[in-house]
Amino acid sequence: MPLVVSQMADAHPGPRPAFDDALNECIEECVACFQACVACADACMAEPDIASLVKCMQTDLNCSDVCAATASVLSRRTSADLTVLREAVETCLASCAACAEECELHAAHHEHCRVCAEVCRRCEQACRRLLAALPASG
Amino acid sequence: MPLVVSQMADAHPGPRPAFDDALNECIEECVACFQACVACADACMAEPDIASLVKCMQTDLNCSDVCAATASVLSRRTSADLTVLREAVETCLASCAACAEECELHAAHHEHCRVCAEVCRRCEQACRRLLAALPASG
Amino acid sequence: MPLVVSQMADAHPGPRPAFDDALNECIEECVACFQACVACADACMAEPDIASLVKCMQTDLNCSDVCAATASVLSRRTSADLTVLREAVETCLASCAACAEECELHAAHHEHCRVCAEVCRRCEQACRRLLAALPASG
Amino acid sequence: MPLVVSQMADAHPGPRPAFDDALNECIEECVACFQACVACADACMAEPDIASLVKCMQTDLNCSDVCAATASVLSRRTSADLTVLREAVETCLASCAACAEECELHAAHHEHCRVCAEVCRRCEQACRRLLAALPASG
Repeated sequence: MPLVVSQMADAHPGPRPAFDDALNECIEECVACFQACVACADACMAEPDIASLVKCMQTDLNCSDVCAATASVLSRRTSADLTVLREAVETCLASCAACAEECELHAAHHEHCRVCAEVCRRCEQACRRLLAALPASG
Repeated sequence: MPLVVSQMADAHPGPRPAFDDALNECIEECVACFQACVACADACMAEPDIASLVKCMQTDLNCSDVCAATASVLSRRTSADLTVLREAVETCLASCAACAEECELHAAHHEHCRVCAEVCRRCEQACRRLLAALPASG
Repeated sequence: MPLVVSQMADAHPGPRPAFDDALNECIEECVACFQACVACADACMAEPDIASLVKCMQTDLNCSDVCAATASVLSRRTSADLTVLREAVETCLASCAACAEECELHAAHHEHCRVCAEVCRRCEQACRRLLAALPASG
Repeated sequence: MPLVVSQMADAHPGPRPAFDDALNECIEECVACFQACVACADACMAEPDIASLVKCMQTDLNCSDVCAATASVLSRRTSADLTVLREAVETCLASCAACAEECELHAAHHEHCRVCAEVCRRCEQACRRLLAALPASG
């Protein structure tokens, strides 16, 4: 598997945060969701019923941009600011939930929406677990 | 001036939202802040006191990623999801505030930090005005 | 105007490259083109003839991703690698030319395509001038 | 494994290009390299010898931006423009080669540079294979 999230985390010279496993898992899901959402928006554009997929393409594109930015922010452990980190994960959770909800409406007709919804739900859950693992005060 | 944010908004076929001016202004500031933060992180790397600028480079890089993603999300007016939009603007506000606060510590010694802090504060204010202009319920 | 590209360049502690004006201008156009292309793809999704705008949305999205990455690469002056810089500008030039060509086909019917094509052509020209200003060997 | 690149490709309604396997593999490596390079730049910032890692952080950041944009461009199969696609892959190849070369200089002392160099070389090879698989004329 090409992703090296945990190897890079293990090689970081700084102290290991208590929420390290939740952090790494969330980065992996963000990275996968970023790509899946770009691909789903693209597949929607090739469907004959494109006009009924406008909201789907929009939530896909928003979710891909947010997931990529969140993956980057979470990958920066040195001097991490917990307030910004928590806000970023909350935005990611909201984007993934919105995209999953929309993609699920088309999952029965479009396999790309079914797979994308699944990846968004996994990323949403990873965001939820990371938020639960973060220390209480920012 | 190269930015065409309001021309593109005027050319959009959909209805004009009530918060249109606040939205356009916020996009413009996000786009400027994205570039300024990339440039500030880069200038920090060329400073002799780079070791004292680690937190500054980190907040710069986070702020640039978040501002670019926010500019994209705000530029998607068709089927805009107010919950995701509000979350994205809140994350952007938090990133800009964190970056401004850190850059201000170095503003007396580094002109790039002074300019970057100013741009971050402008973007933070634009986020605040947009949040105030958004309708109450998501 | 919100962009601070040349202020940030002036504040950089390193030596000024001979191609500095062409570099700054290209960064400004990349940043404007990144936003215009996101907005044009979005406006296309709100058009009744969306099915005839698929290629347009695709070139818009590619061009926005490439312009944002190019703006970042060009904003990193410290230890800049001329081979990578030249490749990045060539990709940006190709993306802008492809997007302008496609948007021009719809410019008579869609004002957002007309404005976007104009911004892409400006960015294409800025890329061309930067390539001409770069030293011969990478 | 979280990545769903080939599932999304299989679910796309359009025709399968002849270079499909090389395309999917290249997307996977770009996505992994995007994250590894963000993480390596961050780990460099936490090292005591940060001043000797400036070029490394710079090539890391350029490579992460280029790999993310390339992953997005390659994930858009509908109406793909072979000229833009080829240019994008060539820029990615150059960025990965430059980053690998720099990271390899620090691989003996920093495990994050060793892992990052490996991922960059894998992505470079995937770019090379994709270029070889693309049809001759753009």
